[in-house]
Amino acid sequence: MCQLLGMNCNVPTDICFSFKGFCERGGTTDEHKDGWGIAFFEDKGCRSFLDPSPSAGSAISSLVKNYPIKSCNVISHIRKATLGEVTLENTHPFTRELWGQYWVFAHNGDLKSFHPSFQGSYLPVGSTDSEQAFCLILERLKQSFPERPTPQEVAGELQRIADDIATYGIFNFLLSDGICMFAYCTTTLSYLVRQYPFSKAQLKDRDIELDFSKIAGHADRVAVIATEPLTTNEAWIAFPKEQVLVFKDGVVVNT
Amino acid sequence: MCQLLGMNCNVPTDICFSFKGFCERGGTTDEHKDGWGIAFFEDKGCRSFLDPSPSAGSAISSLVKNYPIKSCNVISHIRKATLGEVTLENTHPFTRELWGQYWVFAHNGDLKSFHPSFQGSYLPVGSTDSEQAFCLILERLKQSFPERPTPQEVAGELQRIADDIATYGIFNFLLSDGICMFAYCTTTLSYLVRQYPFSKAQLKDRDIELDFSKIAGHADRVAVIATEPLTTNEAWIAFPKEQVLVFKDGVVVNT
Repeated sequence: MCQLLGMNCNVPTDICFSFKGFCERGGTTDEHKDGWGIAFFEDKGCRSFLDPSPSAGSAISSLVKNYPIKSCNVISHIRKATLGEVTLENTHPFTRELWGQYWVFAHNGDLKSFHPSFQGSYLPVGSTDSEQAFCLILERLKQSFPERPTPQEVAGELQRIADDIATYGIFNFLLSDGICMFAYCTTTLSYLVRQYPFSKAQLKDRDIELDFSKIAGHADRVAVIATEPLTTNEAWIAFPKEQVLVFKDGVVVNT
Repeated sequence: MCQLLGMNCNVPTDICFSFKGFCERGGTTDEHKDGWGIAFFEDKGCRSFLDPSPSAGSAISSLVKNYPIKSCNVISHIRKATLGEVTLENTHPFTRELWGQYWVFAHNGDLKSFHPSFQGSYLPVGSTDSEQAFCLILERLKQSFPERPTPQEVAGELQRIADDIATYGIFNFLLSDGICMFAYCTTTLSYLVRQYPFSKAQLKDRDIELDFSKIAGHADRVAVIATEPLTTNEAWIAFPKEQVLVFKDGVVVNT
């Protein structure tokens, strides 16, 4: 299995604090050492750092931990390989373009006997069940909406696609177009929203504490999503099962 | 305008030496300081490092200069913006998937009044003429070949597409699918092939010399392609104008 980390905010924010804890799970505090990746949206642009090496101890993850890239939508993933070899092409998150926007996807789970056929709009490069699921999601979205629809329309169609794919096994995922963060969970996923009044947060995987009241603006709002809570002293909310949640500007907008 | 750097080899090789010289042109020895990027193929996988900041002095370019990623196909670009703002989405190289392979593209030049219409398979995310050219190339390749063709077939079709696009202005580009490097030039592009017997090379933009005879294997072969020669003591070959060259395993295979 793997672990997911996502962030969605109303102002560009760096993920250094959360990532410092998260990437320890890639070989130090947990066993997810078969590669890792992180994708940052910056306006319409998107850049990823992908590494088939363990995140704990990686030179690239050291850069990411200490180089504050400000973004409103971030998706990160640490991998424990189940289906597909430990190679760069099987390293999440995956990126494709749809409706002139980049879309980024990462998956935690295990889809058994999942071998969809594709029309050709999006073909997997690697051999993971995850990339196949991503290609199928984009293909079906493109078939349903030749032009870019509203986030609510995406969420409605995504709910149907995700429910279909979830019949094959564990399907927890994060998907973003740089504006919204779409999240879905069949087993384990949690989130919290940090907003005014801010307080201190203590990482679970490293002895690091950060007082957000000293660095955040009054209007800032940041949603953090993770397979397992990243901090010990904040109230993480377990995701409802099998329901697409849409985060925009740091808050859930479709419940 | 911009500058291009490409590498195509028969064994995975790092590009640290060439990149150390090249990235100085992004703000130190030359004026191409409107962002930079580099993409490395590793088998079927591909990872890019993109940065809208100047390459000279960038924390990410420092990592790339000192972190030897072994690859048989690398494309790098330093940008001096002509069309399109200095943003991440306008930073080369661009990546898309076609026939279940990643394709990477970078362009040096300036296409005037170039506003192609697209069928929808590939849409530009940013506002550069370059990304439009890339999307048009992939769309036409996909239309001509529903299934993956041979490199020779790609080269033939690419020649026609490139000639069409070149009617709009300066069109020097590098394109790779991770197996071959396709290169085309209407104005300035040079290459050299390093192979046995290897010798010393002296960078033009930094006082760094490397003796390849001490680090390369007898069978190694590396083609390096650059807008302007990167070394002072090697015989760089000027590209023929308006002719697609295909590099595979470190050598031109289609002349």
